Amino acid sequence: MHYAIQIAYDGRPYSGWQRQERSRGIQEEVERALGELSSCEITVVAAGRTDKGVHARGQVISCELPRIWEPQRLRLALDARLPSSIRTIRVAPVPSNFDARYDAQWREYIYFLWFARYTYPHLSGYSWSLYRPWKDEAVRQGCAYLEGTHDCTSFCRASDLPENPLRTLYRVSYHRKGDWGWLRVRGNAFLTNMVRIIVGSLHEVGLERRDPLWIRDLLEERQNREAAGRTAPPEGLFLWKVGYEKDLWNACVPESGKETT
Amino acid sequence: MHYAIQIAYDGRPYSGWQRQERSRGIQEEVERALGELSSCEITVVAAGRTDKGVHARGQVISCELPRIWEPQRLRLALDARLPSSIRTIRVAPVPSNFDARYDAQWREYIYFLWFARYTYPHLSGYSWSLYRPWKDEAVRQGCAYLEGTHDCTSFCRASDLPENPLRTLYRVSYHRKGDWGWLRVRGNAFLTNMVRIIVGSLHEVGLERRDPLWIRDLLEERQNREAAGRTAPPEGLFLWKVGYEKDLWNACVPESGKETT
Repeated sequence: MHYAIQIAYDGRPYSGWQRQERSRGIQEEVERALGELSSCEITVVAAGRTDKGVHARGQVISCELPRIWEPQRLRLALDARLPSSIRTIRVAPVPSNFDARYDAQWREYIYFLWFARYTYPHLSGYSWSLYRPWKDEAVRQGCAYLEGTHDCTSFCRASDLPENPLRTLYRVSYHRKGDWGWLRVRGNAFLTNMVRIIVGSLHEVGLERRDPLWIRDLLEERQNREAAGRTAPPEGLFLWKVGYEKDLWNACVPESGKETT
Repeated sequence: MHYAIQIAYDGRPYSGWQRQERSRGIQEEVERALGELSSCEITVVAAGRTDKGVHARGQVISCELPRIWEPQRLRLALDARLPSSIRTIRVAPVPSNFDARYDAQWREYIYFLWFARYTYPHLSGYSWSLYRPWKDEAVRQGCAYLEGTHDCTSFCRASDLPENPLRTLYRVSYHRKGDWGWLRVRGNAFLTNMVRIIVGSLHEVGLERRDPLWIRDLLEERQNREAAGRTAPPEGLFLWKVGYEKDLWNACVPESGKETT
């Protein structure tokens, strides 16, 4: 039986979705828990392969399990076997050809910024602490240049450049409330470190070290990684939501209560 | 020179404000950091002695330091010497007779509740996860009975009952937004575990296992600890704000940026 599972995790204890030498990956924790429940080896596919230290609220995985599960029971059984830094949010049975990665139509990331001289310890692991606030108008202009289909070579870790660096960003928006800022980025797919390099580049614009037009130039001139801003730290980044053609969850888990989307 | 310092902490790694056998207290971490800066032993007084596992956003301490500090420099020097789970928010010079505990006019606590079948790992350390939401109207009635000056014997850990169990609660209010609930409790002072026993008792009312009038009876009959509800877990509780006759901070730290109060 094939399942889609939404999971949330605190990225700090992990090497990222994928395992690295000497440190645990989130994937292996999830596969271990599913393997224990199934008494056989289980392989999962994830919609987004988050980097080391990056969080997830709405990661989606797909897997084939040897038995049929009532969704809410599978959710509870998994939570009992996962570390508390990884939680399952929703479970849905899906067609056997469903693939969490290839069937995803878009991924949305949110990057949180905290603009104050002090930080609260409860929030500092989930945001980038910056003393000086960004200039809203400049950042919003930079965001507007990012929307659309572009060669994103400047926004990819140099060692990981794929053959096709074209990516489409459907929406890039910047929000402010009190001492908080956050950036929502929705796109069809993302290159390695892409959101964090976008945030690091908008930081240059937000502090008025660069003109917003610089963002347009980075995209048009297809420059290399060095041309763009620094890579913003991972702790501010959340894989927030993944979109599929049909709503995977609505019909499937009425017993799991009111779910926020 | 005498100082007031606002600190915030994640209560999870600590035995509470005070040291206990085998586990660190927040007080000793703060006194160690201040002692390193001053090259002598420093003793601090706190407005509220939070229990093991309880968080603080607005704890206030007072201390005498052998030298004069520019407030923002003292704040940064302290943060550099404290573990990342304890942060200093504001520093202000105060008159030499200022005492963070005895001069406090009120303390405000907030207790966070999360009403959903699933939890996010980023939030579960800062809230009490409950499946079934409380009935708002019943809880609000219970809150109304709590306001005023009462003998709070039923709401104190039995082993810690003081000679005078009278306490005044200025405001007890219950709020809901989405899957969140939170309880704000402002009073002149609190008995051991008092807010958590109040939350555990309102839980009985919120689930309609008890009538709101039960809260009034608990107060009027001055019963013992067993009569009230369970002690709610510490992770939902924050010491949110402490009130003094004069605003300690406003005039003192203009250089520390916009502070939310």
